[in-house]
Amino acid sequence: MQNFVFKNPTKLIFGKNTISSVAKEIPLSAKVMVTYGGGSIKRNGVYDAVMAALTNHNVIEFGGIEPNPKYETLMKAVELGKANNIDYLLAVGGGSTIDGTKFIAVALNFDEDDAWGLLTGEYNPVKYKTTPLATVLTLPATGSEMNCGAVISRISSEEKFAIHHPSNYPQFSILDPTVCFSLPKKQVANGLADTYCHVLEQYLTTTDNGRVCDRFAEGLLLNVIELAPQLMVTNDNYDLMADFMMSATMGLNGFIAMGATSDWATHMIGHELTALCKLDHGVTLSIVGPALMDVMRDAKRAKLLQYAERVWGIKDGSEDERIDKAIASTRELYESMGIKTHLSDYSIGQDIADEIVKRFRDRKLNIGENGIITPDLVAVILERAK
Amino acid sequence: MQNFVFKNPTKLIFGKNTISSVAKEIPLSAKVMVTYGGGSIKRNGVYDAVMAALTNHNVIEFGGIEPNPKYETLMKAVELGKANNIDYLLAVGGGSTIDGTKFIAVALNFDEDDAWGLLTGEYNPVKYKTTPLATVLTLPATGSEMNCGAVISRISSEEKFAIHHPSNYPQFSILDPTVCFSLPKKQVANGLADTYCHVLEQYLTTTDNGRVCDRFAEGLLLNVIELAPQLMVTNDNYDLMADFMMSATMGLNGFIAMGATSDWATHMIGHELTALCKLDHGVTLSIVGPALMDVMRDAKRAKLLQYAERVWGIKDGSEDERIDKAIASTRELYESMGIKTHLSDYSIGQDIADEIVKRFRDRKLNIGENGIITPDLVAVILERAK
Repeated sequence: MQNFVFKNPTKLIFGKNTISSVAKEIPLSAKVMVTYGGGSIKRNGVYDAVMAALTNHNVIEFGGIEPNPKYETLMKAVELGKANNIDYLLAVGGGSTIDGTKFIAVALNFDEDDAWGLLTGEYNPVKYKTTPLATVLTLPATGSEMNCGAVISRISSEEKFAIHHPSNYPQFSILDPTVCFSLPKKQVANGLADTYCHVLEQYLTTTDNGRVCDRFAEGLLLNVIELAPQLMVTNDNYDLMADFMMSATMGLNGFIAMGATSDWATHMIGHELTALCKLDHGVTLSIVGPALMDVMRDAKRAKLLQYAERVWGIKDGSEDERIDKAIASTRELYESMGIKTHLSDYSIGQDIADEIVKRFRDRKLNIGENGIITPDLVAVILERAK
Repeated sequence: MQNFVFKNPTKLIFGKNTISSVAKEIPLSAKVMVTYGGGSIKRNGVYDAVMAALTNHNVIEFGGIEPNPKYETLMKAVELGKANNIDYLLAVGGGSTIDGTKFIAVALNFDEDDAWGLLTGEYNPVKYKTTPLATVLTLPATGSEMNCGAVISRISSEEKFAIHHPSNYPQFSILDPTVCFSLPKKQVANGLADTYCHVLEQYLTTTDNGRVCDRFAEGLLLNVIELAPQLMVTNDNYDLMADFMMSATMGLNGFIAMGATSDWATHMIGHELTALCKLDHGVTLSIVGPALMDVMRDAKRAKLLQYAERVWGIKDGSEDERIDKAIASTRELYESMGIKTHLSDYSIGQDIADEIVKRFRDRKLNIGENGIITPDLVAVILERAK
């Protein structure tokens, strides 16, 4: 196990009828900007519940944050926030709204010319203050409600980059499973796939992650496998939705990353597919993940065998047969939720693969645990994902 | 799953050679009191490492906090702390030193006559401020390094009570597995038993705890079962000790209690055994736990069967046969570490059992999840533990 420092100060407020607690969690003196996405929160009652709770607060709002939140849109929110001296942000939505709001939280305190530089590494975001933010989660998937990371896209350059800031942990996050009852099945499927892949990125690497993170990760994987078929049939069962919400949050809040070796190559390749082809995030992970496991099977051999046995109960056959079965089972999990797992299913051809490989070459970037995935291997992975 | 609020702000600093970081974690302006126990930290180098790191700080020290920390001793530390205007506490030791220091942290800010009232319920501790505290952990067991609870004993009345204060989460806790290499085997065994029982208290109750807490708890139990035989042979293997430290901390830091129904009756009965008979805490849990599981088997039936299958792999036989096997396996785990699990092994007779039952009767206290364990059932449990 590697040495590590862990601190996650987010206050989780979980359960039925908890949205009203925003009233007492946000100081009455705050100038609040409520941020949200395309308006589903206005149809399912969440917007009304939040605004009713904030009746006595000083509130403005900014709607229209897209899936894979766009830099161009977010900068409009920053302009609005600066003009109104906003000092508290409340993101009401899923991972895109929350991620976008985390970027706003830094950019509100950034006065240089080009805030995109906070994402490319030109400016170190940690050198800037952040505006306190909190969330009301409406879509379990990204874990953004209990971590300090965000991923932002820019339309003009078809790029997608991450930003981390230790002050960007939400002050509090409200998770009411009942608000997820109205989610379309596709979003539930993407959220489950996203959760599953988050856990794999932190688990399926080396064998020295330590027993706690391994067991916690395996537990979350088993949960998704158990929940997926049930949530594909019904999405208004409180206990199932609560378990999904909990699993998604715990999958990316640091609990399974303590001292562990992470991968994240599936995400990095997936981000490029989203940036170039507009695929849903969860879909890109479902395409890249199984192909990456297959190509990297030697480096990940011991952990793949552990995954096969403990998560899928696969004990018989040669090592490679067991690994093949585990990869096939993973693919079947995604497909069982209606997510196609090959590039060809989305008519994505060699030109896109070539562009993605070129981007990693241009950035001179090796990815994966311990930098084991070269641009050449990215090409092999995309070939395997065809 | 029940509604819940979770927030754990403790910063974990984990790994080799991490003790020196106390220097930058504690403000230079602080007036620090370093607290410790019987002096083992002076023999294993931890005291020297801490003091070397604090060379530039304003430091006094208070040693001699006993196992099952005593109110009478702790009040001397409070007196010393008040006389020196202490505003930061650094506990260097195991759960007893840390628990004692948490009490000191409240009592330093308490000016009424009798601070024991903070433990009996006469005064609500939450109404008083606390002095910030941090820890350097030397014995994995209680989880006190990452929670806000403490258990304190009073010699004069042979009583042992708990105190909780949301401001008593350590600011930071340093966990360096190498400092545990010098632990006597008996302390390792007690720590493993304590960890195992902490997890059972939060897990072995109802079936509506949610999939995340269940899976996390089962993972920690499996870890202890895997680690115990190895740590009984060697206690200077870094990875094993790191996994033990992590499991103990995660076993009582709230991670497996989110929305879950807890029991804690084994601890409450065990506390009385320690108070009256001076038994080690881990020993009392190993005696009471299996007897309680046996007596409460109908109320806990569904969860006992889940425990049998998922933790011990017991799938064959009637329900009661599987439960019997799971209880026997639990008992064997404790016994395999050299911990005897019957009251008669310690020459504890009916008079002590009667006194314990009388105490619960006098307090008119039902214990266990949902208050299902009456004083009459405590009597049956102690009879079963003979």
